[in-house]
Order: sequence, then structure tokens, then C-alpha cells
Amino acid sequence: MNKWINNIRQVVPYTPGEQPKEKNIIKLNTNENPYPPSPEVQKTLAGFEADTLRLYPDPAVEGLISAIAENYSLKPEQVFVGVGSDDVLAMSFLTFFNSGKPVLFPDITYSFYDVWADLFGIPYRCVPLDDDFCIRSDDYRGDCGGIIFPNPNAPTGIELPQESVEKIVKDHPDVIVIVDEAYVDFGGTSALPLIEKYDNVLIVQTFSKSRSMAGMRIGFAMGNPALIKYLNDVKYSFNSYTMSRISIECGISAIRDRSYFEETCRRIIETREWAKKELAALGFEFGDSKANFIFVRHKSVPAEELYNALRKEHIYVRYFKKPRIDNCLRITIGTREEMEALFAFLRKYI
Amino acid sequence: MNKWINNIRQVVPYTPGEQPKEKNIIKLNTNENPYPPSPEVQKTLAGFEADTLRLYPDPAVEGLISAIAENYSLKPEQVFVGVGSDDVLAMSFLTFFNSGKPVLFPDITYSFYDVWADLFGIPYRCVPLDDDFCIRSDDYRGDCGGIIFPNPNAPTGIELPQESVEKIVKDHPDVIVIVDEAYVDFGGTSALPLIEKYDNVLIVQTFSKSRSMAGMRIGFAMGNPALIKYLNDVKYSFNSYTMSRISIECGISAIRDRSYFEETCRRIIETREWAKKELAALGFEFGDSKANFIFVRHKSVPAEELYNALRKEHIYVRYFKKPRIDNCLRITIGTREEMEALFAFLRKYI
Repeated sequence: MNKWINNIRQVVPYTPGEQPKEKNIIKLNTNENPYPPSPEVQKTLAGFEADTLRLYPDPAVEGLISAIAENYSLKPEQVFVGVGSDDVLAMSFLTFFNSGKPVLFPDITYSFYDVWADLFGIPYRCVPLDDDFCIRSDDYRGDCGGIIFPNPNAPTGIELPQESVEKIVKDHPDVIVIVDEAYVDFGGTSALPLIEKYDNVLIVQTFSKSRSMAGMRIGFAMGNPALIKYLNDVKYSFNSYTMSRISIECGISAIRDRSYFEETCRRIIETREWAKKELAALGFEFGDSKANFIFVRHKSVPAEELYNALRKEHIYVRYFKKPRIDNCLRITIGTREEMEALFAFLRKYI
Repeated sequence: MNKWINNIRQVVPYTPGEQPKEKNIIKLNTNENPYPPSPEVQKTLAGFEADTLRLYPDPAVEGLISAIAENYSLKPEQVFVGVGSDDVLAMSFLTFFNSGKPVLFPDITYSFYDVWADLFGIPYRCVPLDDDFCIRSDDYRGDCGGIIFPNPNAPTGIELPQESVEKIVKDHPDVIVIVDEAYVDFGGTSALPLIEKYDNVLIVQTFSKSRSMAGMRIGFAMGNPALIKYLNDVKYSFNSYTMSRISIECGISAIRDRSYFEETCRRIIETREWAKKELAALGFEFGDSKANFIFVRHKSVPAEELYNALRKEHIYVRYFKKPRIDNCLRITIGTREEMEALFAFLRKYI
């Protein structure tokens, strides 16, 4: 055995959804947007001068931060950006969950939260969702080291009403509450107004879903300037230059094109609501998703069987072999055509 | 005071070199390459289909890792990539310096090492360079939690001979030794062959200097497959998708263009050797830099005074107000023309 093995950090990493290399598949497994990024992004790329890549980017990322701030009517000092919301969340765990007390998050949720806690040695406690897969805000009462939950939750798609979000934030003035809004743009309500009222709430969003830029890696956090400053201090202590010059420029173009953003989100919501009817007709049960995916269980066909049958047809959905959800599938909302193909197969199969 | 303040991580971040926003300056302060990236990078950018950005990148970054492996005649499982070498080094600190014993690095060195140690709560001890700013390998003997040093060292530019590098690696089979070779391509010798002989050595390099891509954020590590696996586990526990689709594609194009890389490195070395003669004639003293910068001290004019006088002329060099080096300036090797302008001013001023 290597002599150094006991001196190093050994962790069980997060398992990302499959990224199959084959073409001609229907990819409904990692909640990507079926529409391309704003045409403005293509223009920015086409006009980008590669020569400027010899220089470091702006470590303060002022251009992109200002564009995000402007979009949400905030001041730049209320905004932090990172390499996808995973980077923003990892930095947030490192910065804010440092009390030694357990951090709370739902038992069924984004499966990266416990991985970050393990990586940084942060104690945590999972708070069970109710039988309908809903968060009960009362369960989060009492002393803790911080709270994080997605809203809408993943992989359930179910939204916690704003009164309950505010209750959790208000109940815990001494710790940071992170609302992970990766999916909020598909018809959910953002807790963003709370950042003006409470200094302990951080809202995290991403360009990966509603802005069709998973391949570019841009995420951001919004909160009061003190929180953002501490987050920046940790970022500057980790990597001063996380955002490439190209990410910054393309990010600015994407966020400024509001009408394209609104139109693609509208289409996804429309497809989702139609898909709900089709899925119900096929015998699936599911909560009222406000995200770009639906978390379903079939009345009679086991999820794992369906998952494998779909894979054989080159239709990829997400299956989590985990307690309470091992009979569920998470289906990303694709284009209308992709969903038609999925339903055509399911109609035959079921 | 905010109630949550005691529960969060408060750190003193690394201060990156200035990135002035004015045009028409001579920027010799952050060791950027004066030449643009390979023309292949511009071609890749021009041909990049923005539509693909809607999809996540390959989390395993196989394309870029294979290209780097091929360039250095390694197997892909011996290579790790990240968002600049700062990201690679941050992940390495987190992964490998976990014993609770102090990590060793030189007292005069890359000023991010102590910042990472503080961020992750890793104890450390700075080992003084000798009076000529050289690393003495014997000073690194004895029990420790790991060792890291740049070779050539920064900001001195001085190279530690390979026998001494190997001695340090060999003396410490129970901990990881990281050789930070950010500047090795400008005439230094890489310790890369040691990774086939010792399983406890990690070589870290970057696209930011010799490949003119500081603005793209690509760094990499090379080591035995066990080390790389542990590093990847931590990376997947932090952010599964650190490299954007564009970084991956442009990185592949850059590393494959070996002749451009060799030619631009050759020109920088040539300019450096000529600059050494000019600087000596102007009354500067300096060690034998093998990097793309020279760390100088003037016989009579104080460094801080020179730094300020140069700034007024829109010539930026790096000044560190730190013990032992507060009378030195680090001057990046620019183009021949930029260096001529620098020397013309110095000739007048001194």
C-alpha cells in the first residue's frame, strides 16, 4: 500500500447524470434545456478576439456581475458568480456552514448537498419530506448550522410556498439559509425579494437550465453585500480567476436577451403542462412540477424496468436507486417532438 | 453585528496582480504571454457551435485529457485538468495535505500557498530560501504533511536542479510532493520523468503562461494514476463540470500546435536573455531566471520608487511589499518592443 494513503482526503464523489457520447439519442436525463442559447451568444462567440485570451480575465467579473444585477434590479455588490451553481454552492458550503453544528436539508433533494458536507467535514441532518414529497417548514425549527434546499425541489419539482420559505429564513437569524433556485424560472416564485429584508438568506441560480448554457458553466448567488463579500473572500482564496473571458462575455449576452429567455421558458412550461396530461393518461402519478422536469411513478410498471426499456430505445431519463425514490423516474422536459417520441414508446410499452 | 458572523469562514484572500482597464499600457505585472494563443484556437472558436452549449460538457474531460497525455507521452489516467493551475492546486491542497502535520514551502514563493493552507485549515511552515534566493533541499528533511514549491520558483525565477527535486521527493515517500511548474516551459527542466519512478510526486502546469491562455483558465496535473484518481474524486465532490465545452475544445487546439508553442517560448527566452544584459548594464542585480519574468533589485534606486515611477508612465510591473523582497521588482518578459520602452524609460530615470 502507498505510504501516503492515510494522509489524503478520501471521499465518495457525486455521480453526475450520464453524458452519453452517441448521437441520435433523446436526452431527458440531466435537465438540460432543449433549446439553444440566445442567438446573441453565437454572435458574441463569432466576434470574440482569441488574442485577448493571453490576458487574465477580470478577477472581479464586473461586466457579468453588473449585467446580472441589472437584470434583477440589484446592486453589483449583491451578486456573486461562479463556474456553474455547483461551484457557487461548493463555495457557499465552505464559507457559510462553518459552525460545527449540523446543516439541514431535505432527505430527498439535490444529491450533491451531502457530498459537499462530507468533503468539507460539515455535520448535517436530512429532514424527511412528507409523504407527498413536500418540505414541511416546521421540521426545520431549532438550532442548526445552516439550511439549504432547492425551490422548486429536485428531483421532485415541487415548490415550497413563499410564506414557508420566509418562515424558515426568519426562524434562523443566526445561520445562513440558502435557497437553491436552479429551476425557478420555469414557473416558480423566487425568494429574491427576501434578500432586502433578511441578511441571512442567499439565493443561488444558474445559466445551465433556463438560459440553455450548461456547457458554459455559469452560476450566481444573490444576497446582502456582507454575505457576498465573505463569499468573494473565499473565492479569492481558492481561485482568483474562475470565470474565463469567454464565459464572461457570453454570459452578458445571454442575460441581456430577456425576450429569448422568456420565450424559451414559456415553451418549456407549455410542453410540461401538456406532458402532465399525457403522463396522467398513461397511468403515471406525480406532484405538481414547477421545474423543467417531472418526477413520476407508474401505477404498475416498476421505474427501474421502465428506465432500462427506455435506454434500449436510446431515450435517457434519470433513475435514482435510493430509499423512498427507487420507484420513480425524473424526466426532463424536452422539445414537443422529443416528448412525443417518449410517449409513443410508453404507449406501446405499458 | 450580524448574528451569523461567528458561524462563517473568514479569510484573508490572495491579492492578484492588478488588471488595469486602461488601454495603451505596457503590462509586465502578471506574467502573461505577450503573444496571442495559437491561431488554431481562433479557428476553433470561429467554428464552435453555440447550440451545443445547452448540453453539459463531458465531466471526465476526456478529449482535453487525452490531448495533454499525448503531448507528454502519458496515459490519460496520469492527467487531471482544472480551471487554471490555481484550481488544480486548490484541489490538490484539499486532497493531499490532510495529515494534520505542517506542509512545507519556501518563505519566498507563490503567495497563494499560505492562502490555501489558511482556507482549508492546513498547518504549514515556511522554509527560508538562502541568501541568493535558492531553495536548499536539505532544509526540507524530516517529518511533514507534504511539500510544495514552484520550479522555477516564483517570484525569483530561479530553478532548483533536478537532483535536488528528486532528493526531496525520495526523502518523503509518506507524503505528496507537488512541483508547481507554471514557468517550466521557458527553459527550465521538468520533473515529469519522476512520476514514473515515484508515486508521491505531482507535477502541476498551466496554459496561462507558455500557451498564452490566461484568459481561458486551463491548468493540469500529472502524476501516477492513484494520485489522479483521488484528485478526481475531490473534484467530482466539488464541481463535476469545471471545464466548459469551449475551454475543452480550445485547450485541445492549443496543445496540439506544438510548433507555435515552441516558437513563442523560444522568442520569450531570447528576449529574456537580451533583457538580462540590458538590466545588468542599467545597474540591476538578479538571479538567473528560467521563467518569463526577471526578479530584480537596483543597486541604488529603491524598488518601490521605481514601481511608482513606472506606473506613472503606464508601465506596470509587480512589487511585493513583503519581508526580504520589498526592494525587488518582478518584471514580466514582454515583446522586444515593450522591453525597449521599459529600458528607454529606465535609462532616463536612473
